[in-house]
Amino acid sequence: MHEIALGSDILAANNTLAQHNRQHFVEHGVYVLNLMSAPGAGKTTLLERTVDALAGRHRIAVIEGDVQTREDADRIAAHGIPAIQINTGGACHLDARQVHDHLRHFSLDELDLLVIENVGNLVCPAEFDLGEHDRVMLLSVTEGDDKPAKYPVMFHVARALLLNKIDLLPHVDFDLERAERGARALNLDLEIFRLSARTGEGFESWLAWLDSRVARVKAQHG
Amino acid sequence: MHEIALGSDILAANNTLAQHNRQHFVEHGVYVLNLMSAPGAGKTTLLERTVDALAGRHRIAVIEGDVQTREDADRIAAHGIPAIQINTGGACHLDARQVHDHLRHFSLDELDLLVIENVGNLVCPAEFDLGEHDRVMLLSVTEGDDKPAKYPVMFHVARALLLNKIDLLPHVDFDLERAERGARALNLDLEIFRLSARTGEGFESWLAWLDSRVARVKAQHG
Repeated sequence: MHEIALGSDILAANNTLAQHNRQHFVEHGVYVLNLMSAPGAGKTTLLERTVDALAGRHRIAVIEGDVQTREDADRIAAHGIPAIQINTGGACHLDARQVHDHLRHFSLDELDLLVIENVGNLVCPAEFDLGEHDRVMLLSVTEGDDKPAKYPVMFHVARALLLNKIDLLPHVDFDLERAERGARALNLDLEIFRLSARTGEGFESWLAWLDSRVARVKAQHG
Repeated sequence: MHEIALGSDILAANNTLAQHNRQHFVEHGVYVLNLMSAPGAGKTTLLERTVDALAGRHRIAVIEGDVQTREDADRIAAHGIPAIQINTGGACHLDARQVHDHLRHFSLDELDLLVIENVGNLVCPAEFDLGEHDRVMLLSVTEGDDKPAKYPVMFHVARALLLNKIDLLPHVDFDLERAERGARALNLDLEIFRLSARTGEGFESWLAWLDSRVARVKAQHG
């Protein structure tokens, strides 16, 4: 229980282990993405469509993080790829140790892309590096365009922002420009994609970006 | 002394305050850069030349972090811009609290660019967010091309890497490609500039990039 010892630092210990994971991913040439959002923003639906679209193009596996249940891993596994479930048993985020301890379930050399779907939460996951290459954040337009100011850390650490459920835009008050301006103020290089995981609208750009990330890791791997 | 209370988390507390700083910088439309490197890599020399080159183009201020002495702030102030010194009194990095407490010395509305020169160290500064927009790392070619693998966190969190002292390349064994490959494996989007703060070689690209960052913040600020 070193996490609660006097003077210990949970995040520092996590960062060290995350770096260990990252080195591992780099050595195996597998691109790793940490997918984060509030509950119900559509992470698993996004993954299902993404996995189907990339089938045959990349070898993919998924780690599902949830407080409890293995529903999401079952949903993903039904699409014919390796998927394992981590239950945090209460914690509002995955940590590098959990990811590390579950990597033995995969043969990293046989993967191009590993997606880690984090616990649905806009706060804690942003603080915990898992060793991924990129953090990708999902914000559904039903959640409101004021979220960047309220959850700035998440928007600051993300490499890409997916504005999901745009098929619902006619039915909600969500100012896309306002949300994007707020996000970019916190993150000058943020890639933003507007899409709908339900209808598939806007998926071409998102998939093309994913392709380019996987290719970049392969290129570095040599 | 909340930092050493049972169960406290130094990094978590720092991250919260860093976010507070960042919000402050965003509101005032000032681009903030956290400059990090090993001791003697050339941070202050780089800043002196950068400040001179940008005079009249941007309104600049500098925060100097050192364990002790106010030599670096004096060097920068001699170039006619506001410069304050923070002495960490032993700590190997600046933290968000120190930056926060010294911001009152500046009028942020009258600045375009604030550079925070961190304590010379390749480990601790990488862990402490100060609220900057970008972290920029300097690696001098006299330090060796094996540094990415040895200090992976620093290379992972940096937005740009300046390979400094390239005027000394004929005299050292430093493989630019090896260093760049190692760095990009940890950081897919890393911008890399090869330059010499002493001779000014390669400065055009670095200055153009800085210009673009300042302009991007201004554009978001509206």
